[in-house]
Amino acid sequence: VTQYAVAIVGFGAWGTALSALLGRAGHRVSAYTPETDVVRAVAAERVNRKYLPECPLPPSLVVTGDPAQALAGARFVLWAVPTQALGAAVDAAGTHVPSDALLISLAKGFERGTHRRPSQVLQERLPRHRLSAVLGPSHAEEVALGRPTVVAACAQDEAAAAEAQALLHGETFRVYRNDDLTGAECGAALKNVIAIAAGMADGLGFGDNAKGALMTRGLAEMSRLGVALGGRRETFFGLTGLGDLIATCISRHSRNRRVGEGLGRGRALAEILGEMTQVAEGVPTSEAALEMAEAATIAVPITEQVVAVLRGEKSADLAWRDLMARDPRAE
Amino acid sequence: VTQYAVAIVGFGAWGTALSALLGRAGHRVSAYTPETDVVRAVAAERVNRKYLPECPLPPSLVVTGDPAQALAGARFVLWAVPTQALGAAVDAAGTHVPSDALLISLAKGFERGTHRRPSQVLQERLPRHRLSAVLGPSHAEEVALGRPTVVAACAQDEAAAAEAQALLHGETFRVYRNDDLTGAECGAALKNVIAIAAGMADGLGFGDNAKGALMTRGLAEMSRLGVALGGRRETFFGLTGLGDLIATCISRHSRNRRVGEGLGRGRALAEILGEMTQVAEGVPTSEAALEMAEAATIAVPITEQVVAVLRGEKSADLAWRDLMARDPRAE
Repeated sequence: VTQYAVAIVGFGAWGTALSALLGRAGHRVSAYTPETDVVRAVAAERVNRKYLPECPLPPSLVVTGDPAQALAGARFVLWAVPTQALGAAVDAAGTHVPSDALLISLAKGFERGTHRRPSQVLQERLPRHRLSAVLGPSHAEEVALGRPTVVAACAQDEAAAAEAQALLHGETFRVYRNDDLTGAECGAALKNVIAIAAGMADGLGFGDNAKGALMTRGLAEMSRLGVALGGRRETFFGLTGLGDLIATCISRHSRNRRVGEGLGRGRALAEILGEMTQVAEGVPTSEAALEMAEAATIAVPITEQVVAVLRGEKSADLAWRDLMARDPRAE
Repeated sequence: VTQYAVAIVGFGAWGTALSALLGRAGHRVSAYTPETDVVRAVAAERVNRKYLPECPLPPSLVVTGDPAQALAGARFVLWAVPTQALGAAVDAAGTHVPSDALLISLAKGFERGTHRRPSQVLQERLPRHRLSAVLGPSHAEEVALGRPTVVAACAQDEAAAAEAQALLHGETFRVYRNDDLTGAECGAALKNVIAIAAGMADGLGFGDNAKGALMTRGLAEMSRLGVALGGRRETFFGLTGLGDLIATCISRHSRNRRVGEGLGRGRALAEILGEMTQVAEGVPTSEAALEMAEAATIAVPITEQVVAVLRGEKSADLAWRDLMARDPRAE
């Protein structure tokens, strides 16, 4: 197996887990983060206490606040920052990306206001670089512990997907390929909206029956909107759609589900977000998804209710009752 | 709302929960069960301690070991017995079904040996009766507590589905219609096979990433086989397929998932089944599904592994590794 120089932009939970995965496979990994407290703490403690404390870091890993140092000579550059911070990350690090590096996009969301997918944010600033997105059911906490995980390397350019696959594929972290980048990114973004709704059901004390029904309707809603946005329908029933939807809606690791759970218990959004170290991508993405659905005249009843609750316009309890009260018809 | 005489054949967890649901709506409910211990205990304690102790029973409910008494005058007859016991139940009660009664099939599985779906078992003996199956994500424990539940009344005959819907639909128990009875029954049966595999992942200490990937592949496998058996593809992505798959694979209430969890921990099947009061439909259905897939030359890699573990031919750990080791390709 060839060993590569790999740079990771962003050193939250997912960047940390992937640095460990790549380090175990013998790759030389460096990471850039603008968070100076993380740089200092990792140098001192050799663990990312802020974002993923249970993950042992590879001895050779360098974490730095200097993007030029982190990206020098990198054959792969992994973008492990939240969607709303991706533009700023490309501003900071974009000029240091080697010209032959493959970009690997890891963010899951739509950019607020512009509605851009992460790959579009990257490609607008780095139009000559080849790119693949690695998406699918992949909680960092589980990857860090070597729990079995199956994801997809997504790119219109099949060679780019194959390169990302070759870098990351291993015994417990399996990487398939998918050439529907648009559909995969739409699924990855939209599942976080449904996860907030699923969390509301948890917070309201509902059960697995309600969750099964909600997620089924949620996947239908995701695929309706995602197809209107240019994705292929079957992508939404694969790893990057359904697979990630399941892993997110059922997991204690999901921050989006947890936001919904708090709302279901009647807590205020600001209070819930104030307690979280990490970003819940679904909050800004819900607003973006609703705007995109309205522009495309696609019905998104679950997204509508999620946005209404996030805005404080109605309680999770009332939102759920409004969803349930829809007329019984053919499925 | 019209109030009907409703008979339930079988008084396990699901029959009990539905007797409570129907009783609350004002219908006159009687139940027949050949289990004399249940008949006696319900008469004495007014609760079904053996199968669903937390469920309050309607005061007017009659539970009897006499099928003639239970079915006399019934406008609806609900068949709430496990698939493998359905033939015997029709033998015992079939002649007492009033000629204008609508049959409602509730079993989820394939009959061992004959591979018949529950509706086929009923229709073979009662060919002149109209029939609908009510299927979807519906743990009895949650329905008994009034937790929100959404299911589908399935029938080729739209009027039959509409009648079943009219009987059961209510504020917290929502009933949609689906005219693909074959697809719905195939989904209901096959999800229990995947739930055993999901339980194995739990027993092996895997996480939500693994479960998301497994259930995604599992749904693809269910729909491949189910379409070969005459179902419509989209039915598998609806309430009776995906919805029930989710509710089953994530739930502590699922007996099929629990069987898999025990196998994942390395316990013997006989020992696990010996501790259970209720039937795990997925055990006989897995064998039937594998035979049906072989006859139709459909690849069912997950079902194959489940059957191998159920037969004691390999450990759950090895079965999972064999699944994961498949070549990484396009999704």
